[in-house]
Amino acid sequence: MRGRDRWSAPGPTLAEAGESALLAELVRGASSATAALPVPPGDDAAAWRPPPGELVVVTTDTIVEDIDFRRRYQGPWEVGWKAYAVCVSDLAAMGARPGLVVVSVAAPGATPAAALTDIQLGLLAAAAIDGTLVAGGDLSGTVGPLVVTVTAVGSVDEARCLRRSAARPGDVIVVTGTFGGAAAALGALEAGTEPPAAWGERLRHPQPRLSSGARLGALGVRAAVDCSDGLVLDLGRLAAASGCGADLWLDHVPTAPGLSMTGDARVRELVLGGGEDFELIATAPPAVVERVRAAWPPSEPPLSVVGCIQAETVVRVLAREGGDEVAVVEGRGYQHFQPPPVDAE
Amino acid sequence: MRGRDRWSAPGPTLAEAGESALLAELVRGASSATAALPVPPGDDAAAWRPPPGELVVVTTDTIVEDIDFRRRYQGPWEVGWKAYAVCVSDLAAMGARPGLVVVSVAAPGATPAAALTDIQLGLLAAAAIDGTLVAGGDLSGTVGPLVVTVTAVGSVDEARCLRRSAARPGDVIVVTGTFGGAAAALGALEAGTEPPAAWGERLRHPQPRLSSGARLGALGVRAAVDCSDGLVLDLGRLAAASGCGADLWLDHVPTAPGLSMTGDARVRELVLGGGEDFELIATAPPAVVERVRAAWPPSEPPLSVVGCIQAETVVRVLAREGGDEVAVVEGRGYQHFQPPPVDAE
Repeated sequence: MRGRDRWSAPGPTLAEAGESALLAELVRGASSATAALPVPPGDDAAAWRPPPGELVVVTTDTIVEDIDFRRRYQGPWEVGWKAYAVCVSDLAAMGARPGLVVVSVAAPGATPAAALTDIQLGLLAAAAIDGTLVAGGDLSGTVGPLVVTVTAVGSVDEARCLRRSAARPGDVIVVTGTFGGAAAALGALEAGTEPPAAWGERLRHPQPRLSSGARLGALGVRAAVDCSDGLVLDLGRLAAASGCGADLWLDHVPTAPGLSMTGDARVRELVLGGGEDFELIATAPPAVVERVRAAWPPSEPPLSVVGCIQAETVVRVLAREGGDEVAVVEGRGYQHFQPPPVDAE
Repeated sequence: MRGRDRWSAPGPTLAEAGESALLAELVRGASSATAALPVPPGDDAAAWRPPPGELVVVTTDTIVEDIDFRRRYQGPWEVGWKAYAVCVSDLAAMGARPGLVVVSVAAPGATPAAALTDIQLGLLAAAAIDGTLVAGGDLSGTVGPLVVTVTAVGSVDEARCLRRSAARPGDVIVVTGTFGGAAAALGALEAGTEPPAAWGERLRHPQPRLSSGARLGALGVRAAVDCSDGLVLDLGRLAAASGCGADLWLDHVPTAPGLSMTGDARVRELVLGGGEDFELIATAPPAVVERVRAAWPPSEPPLSVVGCIQAETVVRVLAREGGDEVAVVEGRGYQHFQPPPVDAE
């Protein structure tokens, strides 16, 4: 059920099956997991009882065919998984737990109904790992590429909420896991080769760092962002939201298996600018980071110190060359509508 | 700022302006209205403090260019307004109040940045009427049509929640407002004429019936659905979710100004199947409906009794011809991926 050939699965297309029949089937598919909801799926809106006293947090993310995924690289099941993970990663970056998600799909009428079911199954599989309910959605036609929007609603104790704006000069920057794997997998696919499993898994089954985020918040960390568009770009966003800058120590950045920072510049670009690994970037005063590292269990992806927050509002990437630290400019990261280079006047 | 010519507004395109710069501008535009939020806009997720003890309700809706709107009929400001209203109408049908919305836009790189700003301004204008906060969003590129997804998060006292599944045989069916105006406006535009204002307003500035929905719930009504796809289709959904059927009395259905049910069959089709008026369809026992009608203030759109719920699981549209009631079959309503007619075997 996970193959890329499922984009051309036999059986009726969406146009042949019809919206109402398909929605009814998707609602039935979701309902076994949603017995806990105060209003059954299929009503005008989903209902949810948040933990008393907690902040409700909401985030939405859209993935678009040929921009965020390609049918020749990812099957519909993997697209559903990714749509969930990309969205919920933002809750991880708040230190929050997801409660429910709603999903909206705009698809061409010629899409096989089975592919749509696969998207839902992938989403349900990813959501089940976290105990998240898939509580409703919307299905639209489009003459263009497939568009999947997931909105996640969760909650967090306000005192443990992680914010982009809470970094302070002198904070140490830590990251979870490794960087560059998803981008390396995409690079391999674009070069016509199947990536090694360690990279391919990062691209096809990204893991939102929910338990890491909640743990960071519980251990006293206050500032975090998730890394979806590239380490330098997302660190820059955190620094900017906090009115600070950051030094990133190139040699400390943990890389995906098989990627070495001492290799060529293209590897550096994958690691610093690749994005899509959905690791967390967090900052805290040195004493807090000390405590976090001492309490960090082996069940979590490893934490690495990769730099520090400073007052000057620039992001510098520092590499050690010989005995000196040298600033390198790399890793812009991914932006939709990348502006063209502009000559200075 | 509301014209259709704004789709080709001068100034930079999305591709030229760049995602980060545009998102920053949109966040700045939203922030005056969002001072009440526990986390400022621009973080990984939006945060909201729901009224203690209430159910949190969540709904998502997508509108797609050339399916749900056309650039030659609606300016970007009106598309933003509509995206909000379509979504929040589902909260009205739950008897709920919106707290915040998040919005996701997938747009071609050649779209003027000013058009995107107009979409946000239309959405903010519609949201401001209800005191709803626009708390965050997502901006993506696409090579296809413009896609706008709004997710609304609100709350409702569980005892006053309106559900699709709560209709019972013997219930009276009531509706708010009038039907057919939005569809008549679209018909006029497609025929190349500008619709009269009374119809055009229904299409371009739909009004979600939030106060009507909350009032129905407070007055003891338990079953409702919003009418987005057509009166017969949406009434059928409510009846099906309740395991019942319904009789709709054709001569009682309130029509938009200038539309007469005694006219030709095309008018009937607009009224019964047109959709997009976003009125509420509610049902309750006769004694409750009596009480609701007695307490219904003139500030609300008028309530009309249009039929009754019955045990047999069919939806019949009954017209009076001579002295008899005759079942007529009309008003299928709008479905994406309309299935082709199938011959019975």
